[in-house]
Amino acid sequence: MSVTDELLANNAEYAANFTGPLPLPPAKHVAVLACMDARINVYGVLGLHEGDAHVIRNAGGVVTEDEIRSLAISQRLLGTEEIILIHHTDCGMLTFTDDDFKKSIQEDVGVKPAWAAESFTDPGEDVRQSIARIRNSPFVPKKDSVRGFVFDVATGRLNEVE
Amino acid sequence: MSVTDELLANNAEYAANFTGPLPLPPAKHVAVLACMDARINVYGVLGLHEGDAHVIRNAGGVVTEDEIRSLAISQRLLGTEEIILIHHTDCGMLTFTDDDFKKSIQEDVGVKPAWAAESFTDPGEDVRQSIARIRNSPFVPKKDSVRGFVFDVATGRLNEVE
Repeated sequence: MSVTDELLANNAEYAANFTGPLPLPPAKHVAVLACMDARINVYGVLGLHEGDAHVIRNAGGVVTEDEIRSLAISQRLLGTEEIILIHHTDCGMLTFTDDDFKKSIQEDVGVKPAWAAESFTDPGEDVRQSIARIRNSPFVPKKDSVRGFVFDVATGRLNEVE
Repeated sequence: MSVTDELLANNAEYAANFTGPLPLPPAKHVAVLACMDARINVYGVLGLHEGDAHVIRNAGGVVTEDEIRSLAISQRLLGTEEIILIHHTDCGMLTFTDDDFKKSIQEDVGVKPAWAAESFTDPGEDVRQSIARIRNSPFVPKKDSVRGFVFDVATGRLNEVE
């Protein structure tokens, strides 16, 4: 049995106890942008429940064009007003450089990605970079509450980046 | 108190019961790509626990360059082998067209986004489009198990797209 099949069996259990549907717009008017890291259970970390918040995630929790797209849709069409950014300690993005990663892909498949891999060397510094990219975008209208954190994978605690 | 502050108070409770750290690579070797919709609690829907799977999310659960970046890092550097795509019923992406959304932004701020908003009219069809984009990318090496689902927000059930 594949892992996918195993997780589908879990879904049958989840559906058996499910009550819905909830409204489409997030009840808490917040969008969270976090790293895809397996150890960050965003709903658990923030005490969220189904229907509370948009959750956007990618490798690193960085802000590229696609996160601006998601945040623009979240704020302009679905009424979110606050943004929470979550990077974390022991991140995979600290373990490589863009140049080496893209060179290894080029060696394997003959094509070098035209995109940045978005590796970084300091999670706090990259949180500040993510905030700067959001502040610099004309497409994200609500910027009064854009706060960033580094999740500590040893303690489960969010530490704010000032 | 802002919603962000309220969620930080929840985090203090989470951290009080936290045991870590777990290993960096996802234990179940799977990456999930889902819509950012507030009603999709990916960990709950799939019965995942901290450390199990990469979770990538955006408006629609679509595959753009940034999701290829995340999947490339997930598979090439952190050992994931299966991909699960999750779109859902009653999606916000069904409620607008790219043209209208981008025109409204242009009218508000004077700048039209150079990116696609990635709206769609049928979640199942867009799941197939997402699978096609992954299959077409040279940067995602493992494609033996790329399966897509539409999450039913009324029942909590994942329905596979064939």
